[in-house]
Amino acid sequence: MTPSPALPEDLWPDVRPDAARRLMAAAVESFATRGYHATTTRDIATAAGMSPAALYVHFPAKSAVLFAISRSGHERTLAMVEGVVADHEDPVAAMRTLVERFVAWHAKRHVVARVVQHELDALPPADYQVVIDLRRRTEGLVRTVITRGVDAGAFTVPDVRTAARAVLSLGIDVARWYSPTSKPAPAVLGRQYAELVLAMLGHTS
Amino acid sequence: MTPSPALPEDLWPDVRPDAARRLMAAAVESFATRGYHATTTRDIATAAGMSPAALYVHFPAKSAVLFAISRSGHERTLAMVEGVVADHEDPVAAMRTLVERFVAWHAKRHVVARVVQHELDALPPADYQVVIDLRRRTEGLVRTVITRGVDAGAFTVPDVRTAARAVLSLGIDVARWYSPTSKPAPAVLGRQYAELVLAMLGHTS
Repeated sequence: MTPSPALPEDLWPDVRPDAARRLMAAAVESFATRGYHATTTRDIATAAGMSPAALYVHFPAKSAVLFAISRSGHERTLAMVEGVVADHEDPVAAMRTLVERFVAWHAKRHVVARVVQHELDALPPADYQVVIDLRRRTEGLVRTVITRGVDAGAFTVPDVRTAARAVLSLGIDVARWYSPTSKPAPAVLGRQYAELVLAMLGHTS
Repeated sequence: MTPSPALPEDLWPDVRPDAARRLMAAAVESFATRGYHATTTRDIATAAGMSPAALYVHFPAKSAVLFAISRSGHERTLAMVEGVVADHEDPVAAMRTLVERFVAWHAKRHVVARVVQHELDALPPADYQVVIDLRRRTEGLVRTVITRGVDAGAFTVPDVRTAARAVLSLGIDVARWYSPTSKPAPAVLGRQYAELVLAMLGHTS
């Protein structure tokens, strides 16, 4: 198995050296294909065209590769949501942009997103806590946007916490069902979901 | 490992004999804990308090246990949706009941639902096709309810296919994030999600 061309360099632009990024890409493919537990460090190294010893130069254990993948995905999501909230004072515009980007990313990067979302329980406790904290901050920002919308009379929801969870859940689950043959294209799906989410939050356009 | 008390008999009331049901419950726990690929038939048999040979009396292979679990889950969902559609002429009432039951089930039975939803790719092709057909029929019925609502002027959606997918996606993803300590209780979450879905479909109450 060779690293899939579906995992381009732009997934981890900040990861250096290239070998570490190649190992992360190979691990994503292996975890996605046979699950985290059934994948060995040898599988990952081989898929990256490297020796098992070379893997340990970059990652002390299989779980460290999973953590690098998961942390990176969650940090990027948090940074995206922080950027959107900073750029849009209007909660409707903020929510629209947030959902468009979140959904399009989960469609376009569904293989890595699936690993990030579904192998969370395999992380060692300390790593798990880091990821959970990133998720809490992201969910908190989504709640802030909804609350602003409710305060401004733009949104009406039965429960802010459940509504925030539903918004993120819709986007995350795209990674489960989206495939390279799925329609519509990621950007179009993002716009359709943004319409659905604004309606779900009681916004009448 | 013993079969979890979180997997009560009512999960597979139609499966006989008890040994087959016990094996399915043990398999759900094993698949949920370490993934399908890393689980052996010996793991399943041991967790059910049986010998590997005894497993083969009921299931010819590990994949047959996964198929039994997956088919049962999908058949029950389809039967539930068929029942709701038959019982409710009003598309708003049908959608409300459908989401309440679908969401509550995925919260209450999140362990088995996670296996049903996330190990789909591990099924042999013929079994996979059976499950995909059940999913298509379920999704088709959800589209029918939405289309009826649109025709009756009760719903307004940007795209019926995407809206149907979003409705099911919201419910399915509950199994990913719900845990025994999650709030609110499954039935309450079902009612909150029903409100959110009706709003998402453009219904103004």
